[in-house]
Amino acid sequence: MPFSLKILGSNSATPAYGRHHTAQLLNIGKYHFLIDCGEGTQERLTLFKAKTLRINHIFISHLHGDHYLGLMGLLYTMHLLKRTNDLYLFGQKGLQDIITTQLKCSDSRLNFRIRFHELNPERPEELFEDELLSVTSFPLSHRIPCCGFLFKEKEKPFRINKEKLPQDISLQNIVLLKQGKDIYDENGNILYVNKELTLPPRKARSYAFCSDTKYDEGIIEYIKGVDLLYHEATFLADKLKWAELTYHSTTEQAGLIAKKANVGMLVIGHYSARYKDLTPFLTETKNIFENTILSIEGETIEVEA
Amino acid sequence: MPFSLKILGSNSATPAYGRHHTAQLLNIGKYHFLIDCGEGTQERLTLFKAKTLRINHIFISHLHGDHYLGLMGLLYTMHLLKRTNDLYLFGQKGLQDIITTQLKCSDSRLNFRIRFHELNPERPEELFEDELLSVTSFPLSHRIPCCGFLFKEKEKPFRINKEKLPQDISLQNIVLLKQGKDIYDENGNILYVNKELTLPPRKARSYAFCSDTKYDEGIIEYIKGVDLLYHEATFLADKLKWAELTYHSTTEQAGLIAKKANVGMLVIGHYSARYKDLTPFLTETKNIFENTILSIEGETIEVEA
Repeated sequence: MPFSLKILGSNSATPAYGRHHTAQLLNIGKYHFLIDCGEGTQERLTLFKAKTLRINHIFISHLHGDHYLGLMGLLYTMHLLKRTNDLYLFGQKGLQDIITTQLKCSDSRLNFRIRFHELNPERPEELFEDELLSVTSFPLSHRIPCCGFLFKEKEKPFRINKEKLPQDISLQNIVLLKQGKDIYDENGNILYVNKELTLPPRKARSYAFCSDTKYDEGIIEYIKGVDLLYHEATFLADKLKWAELTYHSTTEQAGLIAKKANVGMLVIGHYSARYKDLTPFLTETKNIFENTILSIEGETIEVEA
Repeated sequence: MPFSLKILGSNSATPAYGRHHTAQLLNIGKYHFLIDCGEGTQERLTLFKAKTLRINHIFISHLHGDHYLGLMGLLYTMHLLKRTNDLYLFGQKGLQDIITTQLKCSDSRLNFRIRFHELNPERPEELFEDELLSVTSFPLSHRIPCCGFLFKEKEKPFRINKEKLPQDISLQNIVLLKQGKDIYDENGNILYVNKELTLPPRKARSYAFCSDTKYDEGIIEYIKGVDLLYHEATFLADKLKWAELTYHSTTEQAGLIAKKANVGMLVIGHYSARYKDLTPFLTETKNIFENTILSIEGETIEVEA
């Protein structure tokens, strides 16, 4: 099952050097989650050959323009592409009003229904759950209400080792094997030893998105041990004070959060437009947390099972 | 004095084939007028090396997303670029509310003041005037309130022919010569014959912007004789019925308006995303009005004096 993150936008407040406002497309199995939607996101979706109509869930972290100004355009385009499926939209208080006001001014009625869920910026909340995965929001520390998002696969079943499986085993017993159980007969004698007939479950993967936020160890409890963490790193380490003032993070702070949360891999982004060369971002963050990569637009980060 | 139009966006509702939503930058003398501001306009301004902070007047024809969704992003960027000058914004009722709602949600206070003028979509109205030029809005026929804009240089003075000018002529008489007058002494005898000392005035140039609109001969009175007319041509001629239904124009209709209005040159645009090749747009329109060009992003159209 795929679990991959495509970077659609990597810059902070102002587009620069071919880098754009924040947007990411997370593909887990059948789901295509859009996370933030900066100006021009619809164009990057087309450019990177993502299928816009496959997106049924959009998560907007907060209402600074560089995180949502592409949303209206995307909604209109979905309408023109004749979307009819409901669209699940998660955003801060006010986003629904922003959309409604603009639809009214353009005298537009979309072909599809937007099911809006107002985020709780104060405490974690489960936004979505099915048999495959769950999505949870959690508070970030920014100048205005802002949420991070945790995408987490459910624990997976033991995998049947088809080469070893007896031909006459019942479906019921296969279900028990997948649950990791040994199987006994009615007299309590062991019939099948689970580990002889199964392979270990595939790993349940996870991704956490944290933008925008100042350095805040309070988020560690929500993101600890994730396979992939996106943490904003708007500034290089020498701009620590400016980062604090603007409720953003530096490279080293992003690395420190990744280290303390013991994540598998860190991807940084939300670069300030003052920087053309991103090399120092990678170097500085790697000094704190080695397994770091840069978010580069158009690139896809696979989370292995 | 420059009088040139830079095309920043040329497509209609959906960006496609590297073409974007409507936006144009009109430079007349010291003025840099932004006309419509589709999504991503700020990026095209940077790409085409236009100086964003030189824009002091923005004209938004109507509130369909493809004509204004880049405005908020541009305002935020102007703020980040530390703009302090007032910005004059002309738009339909509702635009101010759209801006205010979003500024409130982002808890932003811009460094500069927006002087908003609500357009009158019912009748022509002078929006701006100084010694050099005037800007007038006029109603277009679209599904929602929509205005065209006419930019017109003032009549220009006769030019003094320095080679012929007597050395002892007074400043007062030069002023009269510039006004095209012959000059008499106190006894009514002719002193200077104007045409012997002056060259004819440079032409007062004009540009009219008409997007979006269905075919409407009612606009001819506002645009007649302009040097350059932009008229939308969303569809090729065979989509006449569809153009009527959607309150847009075809190539031939744009050509016909240009012809009836006896304009100097026609530039068409607002192409539907269904068309990849624009050649037939040019061919069809030229069949009706020969002096037609396509709007191509990044290109500049000079209006000669």
